[in-house]
Amino acid sequence: MSKIEVETRIGPFIKPVVLVGAMIDGQPNFMNVVWLTRLTFTPNIWGLSIGETKHTVRGIRDNKKFSINIASVDMATKTDYCGLVSGREVNKAELFDVFYGELEDVPMISECPINVECTVYQIVEFLGREVIFGEVKHLYSEEKYLTDGVLDQAKINPLLYSAPGNHYWAIGDRVGDAFSIGKSLKKP
Amino acid sequence: MSKIEVETRIGPFIKPVVLVGAMIDGQPNFMNVVWLTRLTFTPNIWGLSIGETKHTVRGIRDNKKFSINIASVDMATKTDYCGLVSGREVNKAELFDVFYGELEDVPMISECPINVECTVYQIVEFLGREVIFGEVKHLYSEEKYLTDGVLDQAKINPLLYSAPGNHYWAIGDRVGDAFSIGKSLKKP
Repeated sequence: MSKIEVETRIGPFIKPVVLVGAMIDGQPNFMNVVWLTRLTFTPNIWGLSIGETKHTVRGIRDNKKFSINIASVDMATKTDYCGLVSGREVNKAELFDVFYGELEDVPMISECPINVECTVYQIVEFLGREVIFGEVKHLYSEEKYLTDGVLDQAKINPLLYSAPGNHYWAIGDRVGDAFSIGKSLKKP
Repeated sequence: MSKIEVETRIGPFIKPVVLVGAMIDGQPNFMNVVWLTRLTFTPNIWGLSIGETKHTVRGIRDNKKFSINIASVDMATKTDYCGLVSGREVNKAELFDVFYGELEDVPMISECPINVECTVYQIVEFLGREVIFGEVKHLYSEEKYLTDGVLDQAKINPLLYSAPGNHYWAIGDRVGDAFSIGKSLKKP
């Protein structure tokens, strides 16, 4: 075995890139986020870690609701731009076709293949971050992203991110079905 | 616009698949986990959501330390198997070459391109889940996964998972550099 220690300040796994939307002083704003995971089944709660100084945090705290918009590879440039500038200085919403859904004042991005409306379940302040627990209330997509009624990642073509190195990736080949291919190792 | 509502019980983004390792009653055990994100910069804390009834939870609680092993596409079958059977009934560690690092009784998997030793920073019980905050203490890899000294996802070839549909994926093309390609949209 030839294992070596590498630096520990990193999070070297692939992450989907999402744009988090909220109204701030009546204006839609979006920021990009990669520190995201699902946390629970029912209710369906997702956790996001956002820097406490981010402009979007105030919108989420004030309105107790926000959106998560899953970015596609086609949107890589616009998505990256959202991570380079602050909504305090620039109107990022003008980059996108913004729409609103059932929760009304939660801005979402039409170009994103999946849009999720969340209410705030809980916010935990943690080491300079706001860890936001959002409960999924509505989930929007388009017929063109479905196969047999189910969201199809090959059609969605999500934008992925990795660090260290700060690279964006597309998904590649489907390599098998989960809860299935491992059955071949089960002993009788 | 042709947005439609789809079911809200899902988490339709791509997730990396990791094998979480812990000692349980002196034996190494591994479970697969996809609900994972980084949470903070310094200290470097990652959050995992694991079902409270999982065998591995006891090992993490008892030892206050555990490993996160990033699975590669080559390991898809073995990784899937780890999600199909419980360590209560099967010795999953015998599938792998297990090694130990600086924290000593934290089992890790040689075949995984990246191995992370964590100590438990905090555990939060939340709606039937254990949300485990792990602090990264040591991070191991091999020279063959580095390019110019930096971990290279193209060499790591990580196993990715999507639901709904329960599919595994490889990464595909690199589509740009983060904090870079969006600069073209900046106004002078």
